[in-house]
Amino acid sequence: MDRRITGNHRTAVKVRYSEVDRMGLLYHVNYLEYFELARSDWVREYYRPYLEIEDEGYALVVIEVNINYIKPAFYDDNLEVEVFPCDWGHSRLAFRYAIFRKGEPEPLCTGKTSHCFTDGKGKVKRMPKGLKQRLDNLGKKLNS
Amino acid sequence: MDRRITGNHRTAVKVRYSEVDRMGLLYHVNYLEYFELARSDWVREYYRPYLEIEDEGYALVVIEVNINYIKPAFYDDNLEVEVFPCDWGHSRLAFRYAIFRKGEPEPLCTGKTSHCFTDGKGKVKRMPKGLKQRLDNLGKKLNS
Amino acid sequence: MDRRITGNHRTAVKVRYSEVDRMGLLYHVNYLEYFELARSDWVREYYRPYLEIEDEGYALVVIEVNINYIKPAFYDDNLEVEVFPCDWGHSRLAFRYAIFRKGEPEPLCTGKTSHCFTDGKGKVKRMPKGLKQRLDNLGKKLNS
Amino acid sequence: MDRRITGNHRTAVKVRYSEVDRMGLLYHVNYLEYFELARSDWVREYYRPYLEIEDEGYALVVIEVNINYIKPAFYDDNLEVEVFPCDWGHSRLAFRYAIFRKGEPEPLCTGKTSHCFTDGKGKVKRMPKGLKQRLDNLGKKLNS
Repeated sequence: MDRRITGNHRTAVKVRYSEVDRMGLLYHVNYLEYFELARSDWVREYYRPYLEIEDEGYALVVIEVNINYIKPAFYDDNLEVEVFPCDWGHSRLAFRYAIFRKGEPEPLCTGKTSHCFTDGKGKVKRMPKGLKQRLDNLGKKLNS
Repeated sequence: MDRRITGNHRTAVKVRYSEVDRMGLLYHVNYLEYFELARSDWVREYYRPYLEIEDEGYALVVIEVNINYIKPAFYDDNLEVEVFPCDWGHSRLAFRYAIFRKGEPEPLCTGKTSHCFTDGKGKVKRMPKGLKQRLDNLGKKLNS
Repeated sequence: MDRRITGNHRTAVKVRYSEVDRMGLLYHVNYLEYFELARSDWVREYYRPYLEIEDEGYALVVIEVNINYIKPAFYDDNLEVEVFPCDWGHSRLAFRYAIFRKGEPEPLCTGKTSHCFTDGKGKVKRMPKGLKQRLDNLGKKLNS
Repeated sequence: MDRRITGNHRTAVKVRYSEVDRMGLLYHVNYLEYFELARSDWVREYYRPYLEIEDEGYALVVIEVNINYIKPAFYDDNLEVEVFPCDWGHSRLAFRYAIFRKGEPEPLCTGKTSHCFTDGKGKVKRMPKGLKQRLDNLGKKLNS
């Protein structure tokens, strides 16, 4: 079950020429990369740049992905990728996403990614303490 | 619920240098592209090249994706992507996948993609008759 | 020989996780995509969105590429891609590029791409009149 | 000036759906990735897998790229990428390429990439002795 939190984030992405397919639509694989762009920005805003986390010996490995495609996006579209953490434990962390065409209320795409912290060599590891506290605080806020 | 069929296919893929991340692992987004490579090969083998299908005014749009990542793959690994259709209707078609490192019995990754046939402009359309018959025949075989 | 013009443009790009290789460096192929991002922005600023140009039956086909790699870029780097048209005729158009790490005076990479306008099916075609005038005006300014 | 050698190599590549643009053509950036696929295969065939070279503390850094685009390639095309080393020193190594549609005599694209061996942290380093000998032998063969 998801937790409700206060801390969400929106990342602006413009669809690149290289990212559309021969139908002129944003290639379905690239939505997953957009999720990562937003996730990186969330981590940067609410904790620290992912680069620093990785350089300290952590890797946030993807273990599960779900994507629902609702409406297409096109070359040069201005999109916004909304992201928020929806569940976490000591080593696990999951995010939910919704991609919007700027100014439109209905998402083009929704999704979820589940992750596990490892030592970069595949061994599961507790997430950085500061990140865990940040998440717990965001989660608490709503219930108080 | 999935249908059991007889017609599966394996596509060989070698992990490209451009496809691994700074941890040296196959970037999680690229598994989804590998699914497509295998799906294309399945369609080619059991029906016709996807190019011809698209050029006749059909598009096989992705509507849902699920991926489970089990073990990492590395640069230059020889992988095999297994694919088979697991469910279909008049306009919908879903595939299941498992990616193996060559010679290993356990998959590195499993997944499912669900699709809908459209006219290339977003309007849902029945799939080509020949493909529907092929699928029904593959499905029937097992039950007879 | 290059023409000197007044109209250059800088596009900000942040290096994505998916764009670095297993050495942690921006993968050499992606510089060429960054050139395109800057070129699109130039065309948008000095003429019209490339999307509109293409939808009116023009294609700006790449015919030659040169890239010189000087210093590496890394994940999460803030880069700026400078671009300006350096030569043009009735159907041909060439751009020069320099990629900088934000705040650094020396480029990480320089390059040039040469293009030809076609009708989208390979037949050479004169560039849109408005673009030609814009280019000629930018070129004239400097000499006057 | 190029050296003439005996050892060239051809790598088969099938154009992926993800690699074509909204004109239906192989996106110009991807030719450069195809060059790398062929170069990797050359290194594997005439010396050792590039993975082993990199894991021993060498990096073959790209310092210059030239590409000439002659005719387009399309989705699902069967291409062959020809590659041979055209010049080398103690630390530098350059390759030439030609990409053919299978069965056609005229190339779709030609190119050259120049490289420098480093220690993976940017410091120039002599190439592995065995590779240097292999290159010198290939070069000699022709002149004898």
